[in-house]
Amino acid sequence: MALKKFSVEGKIVDRFQVEVEAGEHSITIDQPRAVGGNGAGPCPVEYVLAGFAACILNVMYVVAQERCVELRGASVRLEGDLNPAKFMGKPTEDRPGFQEIRLVANIDADMTLAEKEDFLAAVEARCPVSDNLASTTPVSVVLEEKVAA
Amino acid sequence: MALKKFSVEGKIVDRFQVEVEAGEHSITIDQPRAVGGNGAGPCPVEYVLAGFAACILNVMYVVAQERCVELRGASVRLEGDLNPAKFMGKPTEDRPGFQEIRLVANIDADMTLAEKEDFLAAVEARCPVSDNLASTTPVSVVLEEKVAA
Repeated sequence: MALKKFSVEGKIVDRFQVEVEAGEHSITIDQPRAVGGNGAGPCPVEYVLAGFAACILNVMYVVAQERCVELRGASVRLEGDLNPAKFMGKPTEDRPGFQEIRLVANIDADMTLAEKEDFLAAVEARCPVSDNLASTTPVSVVLEEKVAA
Repeated sequence: MALKKFSVEGKIVDRFQVEVEAGEHSITIDQPRAVGGNGAGPCPVEYVLAGFAACILNVMYVVAQERCVELRGASVRLEGDLNPAKFMGKPTEDRPGFQEIRLVANIDADMTLAEKEDFLAAVEARCPVSDNLASTTPVSVVLEEKVAA
């Protein structure tokens, strides 16, 4: 299959409040009022967890169809811990991002525990967001001036 | 500084359509109609790009304040390419996730090109989402039954 390109554009609206355009959709991102934001939307790392949650659930839907399993329902809860020190410019040995991400899945389908474990392992192995978080991904961050030059 | 915990919960609403709760906010995620979704919201990997976009812009705001730079405006555009083959269950050697993520930043402030480059490098180094994408992050995906047991 051919590579598929995804793209988004975002800009600062007010301090921490950001508006991102993804195709026909618009996404509002912000920090809580307690840390100086307007509280207009979830914060950036919550969107990463949300994308991971949805990616796992989307792959569940695909794999269930392949295996002719009736997926009556599925839910996930995710947690991640990070030290905001580096983000805030304070001295720290810690990395800026999540030190660990934990996902717990609830699957409502007629499968044994062993079948659910096999199902979930197949789902995780095929999940794009899981791959990008667990493994390294080349990331380039450049100024517009350097692209235009 | 103490570790800060972030958490979200998500569930399948209809096929690829997912609803995620992040604190007081609700996020709708879906696939386009062309691939079998309802088109009710951006897709999971677009949310990851959006989280990355906003994270870079949030760190820009923090670093600009530290450096007493007036950030009149800032915007970013992001692109990522992935092969959907593994997600779809087709034979492939490719990884399921983005093979590369490119971010181009536009910074409206009274800085020379060299100052903008230094500014952007500091921002990238302190950005939590950049860290989680570019480096490895321990990810655990387990069944509710295994947690409860």
